[in-house]
Amino acid sequence: MRTLVVDLGDRSYPIHIGPGLLARADLLTAQVAGRQVMVVSNETVAPLYLEQVRAACAGFQCETVVLPDGERYKDMDTLMRVFDALLRHRCDRRTTVVALGGGVVGDMAGFAAACYQRGVPFIQIPTTLLAQVDSSVGGKTGINHPLGKNMIGAFHQPRCVIADTDVLGTLPDRELRAGVAEVIKYGLIRDRELFLWLEEHIEEVLARDSEALIHVIERSCRNKAEVVAADEREGGVRALLNLGHTFGHAIETGMGYGDWLHGEAVAAGMCAAADLSTRLGWLPPQDRDRAIALIERAGLPVRLPAALSVDRFIELMAVDKKVEAGQLRLVLLEGIGAACVTARFDPQLLRQSIAACGAAA
Amino acid sequence: MRTLVVDLGDRSYPIHIGPGLLARADLLTAQVAGRQVMVVSNETVAPLYLEQVRAACAGFQCETVVLPDGERYKDMDTLMRVFDALLRHRCDRRTTVVALGGGVVGDMAGFAAACYQRGVPFIQIPTTLLAQVDSSVGGKTGINHPLGKNMIGAFHQPRCVIADTDVLGTLPDRELRAGVAEVIKYGLIRDRELFLWLEEHIEEVLARDSEALIHVIERSCRNKAEVVAADEREGGVRALLNLGHTFGHAIETGMGYGDWLHGEAVAAGMCAAADLSTRLGWLPPQDRDRAIALIERAGLPVRLPAALSVDRFIELMAVDKKVEAGQLRLVLLEGIGAACVTARFDPQLLRQSIAACGAAA
Repeated sequence: MRTLVVDLGDRSYPIHIGPGLLARADLLTAQVAGRQVMVVSNETVAPLYLEQVRAACAGFQCETVVLPDGERYKDMDTLMRVFDALLRHRCDRRTTVVALGGGVVGDMAGFAAACYQRGVPFIQIPTTLLAQVDSSVGGKTGINHPLGKNMIGAFHQPRCVIADTDVLGTLPDRELRAGVAEVIKYGLIRDRELFLWLEEHIEEVLARDSEALIHVIERSCRNKAEVVAADEREGGVRALLNLGHTFGHAIETGMGYGDWLHGEAVAAGMCAAADLSTRLGWLPPQDRDRAIALIERAGLPVRLPAALSVDRFIELMAVDKKVEAGQLRLVLLEGIGAACVTARFDPQLLRQSIAACGAAA
Repeated sequence: MRTLVVDLGDRSYPIHIGPGLLARADLLTAQVAGRQVMVVSNETVAPLYLEQVRAACAGFQCETVVLPDGERYKDMDTLMRVFDALLRHRCDRRTTVVALGGGVVGDMAGFAAACYQRGVPFIQIPTTLLAQVDSSVGGKTGINHPLGKNMIGAFHQPRCVIADTDVLGTLPDRELRAGVAEVIKYGLIRDRELFLWLEEHIEEVLARDSEALIHVIERSCRNKAEVVAADEREGGVRALLNLGHTFGHAIETGMGYGDWLHGEAVAAGMCAAADLSTRLGWLPPQDRDRAIALIERAGLPVRLPAALSVDRFIELMAVDKKVEAGQLRLVLLEGIGAACVTARFDPQLLRQSIAACGAAA
């Protein structure tokens, strides 16, 4: 097992990474404050791993709520089911909420923990690669609104993150690849060495080689932890973690939550961001091509959906948390391993990039 | 105008109290960060005061959402209308949410501000006595759940509180009295001098004498500000502000949100708490009688509703944020001006108090 720490003063917490961690009751119970635990999971993950987690919670009053699976359920109605369960079981203010699932479960369970009785502790047990390398770390929680992704939420840091690499064995290939998109993201925005490593070893990751997986999870979490420690509430550098996400959110909202996996939308979005960066003269064309080639080798989409027009795309991108005073701000690349957030781009070049990357005229 | 400060380090903020403050655009705009303002009000208050506030916001993009009036609407569906409005108007992360109304509007607007894009600034303009003396100060925000009051929420401090005493001129008598309940509360839990002053001057307050109102608002806010500064997130002493509230929340939940005003429920609850304190031998009977007499002179209920049985009452009280490890904790009195939070009481005595104070057998 390897353990990293997200350094946030009195809200610091460990990320444990390795095989067989679900059975480690000690990791879980070290962080449970009260005597009640509410495990939030979904219909796909619960049949596979819920019993192990419940067993690790022996000695506590352990309750469960199982949500439907999928981004389309990351909404207020489904969130209310978590509150209903907490109240029905008379969970008190010291109850620990445990998220057992992918990014959607983690975001919703974390948001429920942030709001229940104005805040209770929570623990992340991510079961997808995407959640292990990205969404379970950093305290962003929330739900979608029909008009925009992740528009309702809170910053609420977990007490710990338990990333059991064994659970990736049951992850569908498509979900594995979606997680690889966020790994490539770290390489592009701040970790050139990771990018070069991925160019050499991407096939091992896709083949689920255990050492390769542990390497990318640890490396990704270290990148995430450093950024979050420097800027917990996204006043600055944390926004870089959103490379490809403004394009990606437009795809997810425009295509209906769930048709595209989040990681797939981010992958296509990173290609568009790289393209725009090159059009602006900031990113050499050969670096753009290397970025797109790696994303393609990971089996991820490199084109925006033709079902969305350029106009619609621009409209959807306008609903983004990085918009300030009506100005869209984007994460763009200045090289492999170097990114910036900027509003200083020609909107016409943005339209050209969106069209060139596959949106309908 | 008098100004107090709630001392919370970099989240400190002023409370302005006095007549004619709604017209003071400078107070409002000093705290607006971005260029967008979303005023949240209700159907009762908006026709009276919304235009003044909109005028004070000249120069900003000022949007409005008007909610139905009443505690029964302090729910998730109504909250979603605020998010809908924020997104429809493309409000960005620097938008300032302004709560113009009583406690319900303040709690909902504040919670929406806490969650919109994971947190935007907000300003409280309380228009009821209860909101001016209590709920607008301290950063507690939230909504009700059918199974429990204020069970979903966040701590989110406002940028400032603007308590214009002129607006109390349009407040119905019943609402005025409900606010007086919270003023009496400060006297009972920590400000014996205020209690003695109220015994002398309660009729002036009820007659809306301007100086008397300003006195009780300032004195109450000072008490609240001191407690909140000492214990922002209710780890300890802040719980004392909940005198009468565990009984009160049981009344509100049990009778359906809205039949009893919050202040009325708290008033009857404080009588029950005083009664139990006396049964435990902590509060001299004559002090209990003085407390109940003052509450009665304020025109507030001193009896619990007979429509609730003792068993139902106990059941409703079990859903309380102060419950820990299954144990109910109550704020009780040790004198006029002295309170404590404790689980050390005989449950049989609690049942006796509930019955003696009016609940059905």
